[in-house]
Order: sequence, then structure tokens, then C-alpha cells
Amino acid sequence: MSSEVQKVRLALDAMGGDNAPACVVRGADIACGEHGHLEITFYGDEEKVRPLIERSRHLSDARVIHTSDAVSPDDTASQAVRRGKGTSMWMAIASVADGTADAVVSAGNTGALMAMAKLQLRTMTGVTRPAIAAFFPTVGELMCMLDLGANIECDAENLVQFAILGQAFHHSLTGKESPRLGLLNIGEEEQKGHGYLRVASRRLADPDLGINYQGFVEGSDLVNGQLDVVVTDGFSGNIALKTAEGISSMFTRLLRRSFAKTWLSRLGYFLARSALSDMRRHIDPRSYNGAVFLGLNGIAVKSHGGTDRIGFANAINVAAELVDHGFIPDVSAAIERANSILEGKKDDG
Amino acid sequence: MSSEVQKVRLALDAMGGDNAPACVVRGADIACGEHGHLEITFYGDEEKVRPLIERSRHLSDARVIHTSDAVSPDDTASQAVRRGKGTSMWMAIASVADGTADAVVSAGNTGALMAMAKLQLRTMTGVTRPAIAAFFPTVGELMCMLDLGANIECDAENLVQFAILGQAFHHSLTGKESPRLGLLNIGEEEQKGHGYLRVASRRLADPDLGINYQGFVEGSDLVNGQLDVVVTDGFSGNIALKTAEGISSMFTRLLRRSFAKTWLSRLGYFLARSALSDMRRHIDPRSYNGAVFLGLNGIAVKSHGGTDRIGFANAINVAAELVDHGFIPDVSAAIERANSILEGKKDDG
Repeated sequence: MSSEVQKVRLALDAMGGDNAPACVVRGADIACGEHGHLEITFYGDEEKVRPLIERSRHLSDARVIHTSDAVSPDDTASQAVRRGKGTSMWMAIASVADGTADAVVSAGNTGALMAMAKLQLRTMTGVTRPAIAAFFPTVGELMCMLDLGANIECDAENLVQFAILGQAFHHSLTGKESPRLGLLNIGEEEQKGHGYLRVASRRLADPDLGINYQGFVEGSDLVNGQLDVVVTDGFSGNIALKTAEGISSMFTRLLRRSFAKTWLSRLGYFLARSALSDMRRHIDPRSYNGAVFLGLNGIAVKSHGGTDRIGFANAINVAAELVDHGFIPDVSAAIERANSILEGKKDDG
Repeated sequence: MSSEVQKVRLALDAMGGDNAPACVVRGADIACGEHGHLEITFYGDEEKVRPLIERSRHLSDARVIHTSDAVSPDDTASQAVRRGKGTSMWMAIASVADGTADAVVSAGNTGALMAMAKLQLRTMTGVTRPAIAAFFPTVGELMCMLDLGANIECDAENLVQFAILGQAFHHSLTGKESPRLGLLNIGEEEQKGHGYLRVASRRLADPDLGINYQGFVEGSDLVNGQLDVVVTDGFSGNIALKTAEGISSMFTRLLRRSFAKTWLSRLGYFLARSALSDMRRHIDPRSYNGAVFLGLNGIAVKSHGGTDRIGFANAINVAAELVDHGFIPDVSAAIERANSILEGKKDDG
């Protein structure tokens, strides 16, 4: 990192998530230990947050904006928005909307966070609907998938916009120039799947759009290391994401059970454990924690509600990197460019 | 098995699948070695099939009905149906339709098999659309999921029928009296997901229907061992199935890579390999090979195209067990019962 690093001002919802506020403050402590340019403001119950800060190593400059109100995990999005103006989540987002912070991170209720972020940060010009995106491990490099659940029903226009957003997101976090992008379907053949998928596929294949489009891909391709960005509707994306989580957890349990079986297998585990721990790190969900709401005029990062401080620190890192790399102006320019190309084609007939 | 076992007459498409006809004949040889009551008829190229039978151990009574015509893996369903009347696949299905065989097994083109089976076996009275179902390993007992790809768009009525079909299928293969059934969604809360999911959920919860309904389930629940049957539309089901395949294959690759890393980890693997091989068997896709087209007036089993003889033998076992347990009369009675209950409710208001 260069010597004149711009400060990154982060608004953290201290009260969101199963292990709040401890996990939020400790996660911020880890992130600030790794990155010297973070300016942290916690939104939440000062009486609970302050003692945690005092026990931290790197948070002496952190600020606390007090509120005793928090969004409940059981609130629907509309309940949260109606009643939630004084909550830690709302106030943290508001600080991004009014320019006091560069990004917000919350481990709270996803629906509420999306609704409040949309209301306060507003959808970016040229984007019809924002989407949720996150990175995942593969047998090779990281892969980013969107939408993960914000939009149950999508049309071709939404999917093309998700592609532009996802490409910019991937580029921003990895620096890769021309990420390989696929559209999730139930077969690679052109005639497969919903009609809007075929329309989206034709548009994405248009070379003028500048997308490194790989065509339809299947669930089995997600983690084969051949794709950088996978676009899908929020229903399918959520099914794929959670199925992947379920299978991973099944493997971990079966593996643990196998190793525990005999004294020989326990010894085998003991000998292989260092090699196996590399694999565990590679697929550790905490290393991929931090889903981003793409298509808003501001950076809002959703941490998994059940993560620990290491996972929360990773969500903070995602927010900080997007700020560092000027993600919002970049993605907004990419959307404008894509829309003007697509608009031009419409005029052509 | 009792001493007066009824013969099971199986029609095998000898020419379907990547490794046909060798894998078909060798798979049948394994299945006949395990079960003495199978009567096998191969449909396909006699010149290729006959020598394989001669080298088999348990197929001396098998018959061959010759045809040199086969469905191509690249044919669309409609092409296959139009041109395919003389193919091994068509003829094998025809033998079930005319009562010469009790079930058909093919590792050929799925779309063609579904289309030909629908055309010849016809959809069961009371079923709007047939679905594809298969069993999967979980951390506990086996779980069966449908639809896996026959119906891209589904409504509430389809899903309720899939539930009845899936329940009967599970019961037929496992004997479990009241399988726990879930409806795949992107959250467990009632207001989540597509409108037709909420309608289907309300109907499935009706105690008169006699379904052990667990409500909405998520992708992460599929393999947690708490569910016996999971119902979903063919698009989501296919995404979940293939994502699970992809993640499993990633795990296997990463695990192999980890064990190969150092001489210590190689030694560890050597010591633990017997315990690990139980796990490998537990998740071996060949043990779950054999997807069934439910809702037709006849048993049609689809083997994975890329399987080997062990996998194909398993698909034959699935067909044989369904015949043994009188699946078709059972499921047809279950559908009739469910429809008359649902019809009665309609009259009530």
C-alpha cells in the first residue's frame, strides 16, 4: 500500500448479528490491526460497546454513536423500515447516505438491511434492481455469484445489469481485467431454461458489451474454477448458495466422523492435519464473509449473522477494499456505458 | 425375499449412455448376480451386445432384441421422438407400454427418454405433469428430491402432486411409513418465495392429505438428515442437484490434493484410508444412480449417462425394487385418494 493512503471511514452496526456487539467490536479490532487506514464508528448501545473497545488493541480512535434501538432478527423488512429510524442499522446506513462514512457493515437482518439501504442510499441511475453478491471458494480462484436472494423474480434486463455489476465487483476486489462470466441454467444448450434466460444470454454475448461471456453454466460448474462471475436470479442463487453450504457441512461432518472411527484413523488424521488445515482454510466460510448490495449509491456490506470476529473482520475488509478501489464511481461508469450501448442497439431496431 | 418371488421383467436400452453397451450389459450382469428373479431383455445392436453377454456370468437367459438405431445424445426431445421409433430407447419403452416388460432402464438422453416415456406410457390419471425423482445421501438416512428437471415452471397443483408422488416413491423404496416432506424455498418464514409456493405450502399442511409436512426448507437443509422427501420445481431442483455434485467433486479434489501434499499427509491417508473408504462409499454417486420418472403408467428409470457398471446395476435395482413393491398401483391409488380429498375441499368452498 502506498504511503498516502486515503482514510476509509466505516460505519458499523454494532447491534446486528447473533454475537453482537462483541463479534462486531472484536472483528473491527482485527481489521484495524491489519489495516492502519480504517476510521471506525460504531452505532449501538454505548454501555455495551464502550467496555469492548476498552479491551481492544487497535480501536482507541473508534467513535461510538449511541442508540439503544436495534432491528430485530424477526422483523420483516417493512416492519423494520416503518419502526426502525432510530436503530443502529438505520443510523449506520444514514451516515453513508449523508457522506459521513464511506461504507456500512452490518450482520443484522438481511431483508431489513436491504430495504433500509435501498431507501437511504437509493438505487444507482441505470440500475433497475440492486442485487446481493458474494465471493466463494472453488478448486481454483475465487468466484463471485449474484443475485443471492434480493430478487425472487428477474427478467433479462435485470440479469444483464447483474452481469455488469458483478463484473465491476469482481474487478474491484481481484483486479482481474476480463473476468469470465456465466449465466446459471439447467443445461448448456441454447434452448434450455426460462425464456428470459435465453434473451439475457443473447444480450450478454454481444461483443460491444465487453463481457467475457462463457454462455450458460450449470450448478456443477460453479466451483470448477473456470468461472469468475456467475449471474442468476435471487431464488436460484439462494438455492445454490445454501445447497453448497449444506453439502460443505455434510462433508465436514462425515470427514470428522471417519477420522474419529478407529485409533488408526485418528493417528492418520494427526499426521495429515497440517495438510488438511490448508484445505480447511481454503473453504472456511469466514474467509468469504461479506456479501455486498450492488447497484446502490453507496457501499453496504452484509455479514453473516452467525459469524465470529474473524468472519466479521473479513466483511470489514471487503468494505474497505471496495472504498480503496473507488468501486462506486467505477461501477456507475460501467452501468452508464452498458446502458448507452444497449440503448443504441434498441434504436437500431 | 420370499421363496415365491415374482419374476421382474426388465427392458434395458443397451445403446444409451457414454459407455454403452458394455456398461449396460456388465451392470445387468452384476444386478442378476445379486437378484435371481430378474428377466433381462436388451434392446440394441445384437452384434455388439451378444459377445458381451457371452462373457457375462449371470446373463445366459437374457434376450436381445436387435436394432441398429439409437437416440443420439445431441438430439432434442422432439427430434428424438420424430425420428426415433426404431431406436433401442423407443423399443425398450414400448415393451413396458405393451406389457411385455415391467420396467425400462436407460442411460440415454434424458429429454428424449422423458418425451418417449410420456408418449408411450402416458401420464397417470390425476397427474398433470410427471417429475424426475432420485435419492441422495445425507448425514443421516437417504433423502429423495423431485422435480430434478422435467418441469421448468411449476404451479401449486404440480408441487402438491409431486409431494404425493415423492411420498409414495420414498415409501416404496424404503418402507418408511410417514416420510418427512419439505418444500424447497429461500427461507423458512411463511411470507418467503414465490406466491405458488405459499399456496402449495398451505395445501400440503392440510392434515386430511396425510402428508408429514415439515414446511419450507432451504438448500442448507437438504442433506441434514431431517428430511425424507424434498419437493421443488424442476429448475431449482436441477440447480440444487448439480450444485451438490459440483461441491462434492470440489471436496474430493481438495481432499486428494491435501493428502498428496507431504510424505506425512500421505502416510496419514494410508492409515485412515479404511475409515475414509466408508465415507467414500456413503457419498458414492453410483450408489444413488437411477432417477425415476414419476407420474407415468409404467416404471422408467434414467441412469446417469456417464456411470459405470456398478452405477448401472444400481439403476436396475431401483427399477426392480419398484416392481417388487407394486409401486405403480400404490402410487396411482395415492394420487386418486389425494385428488378426491382436494376435490372435496374445492366443493366445500
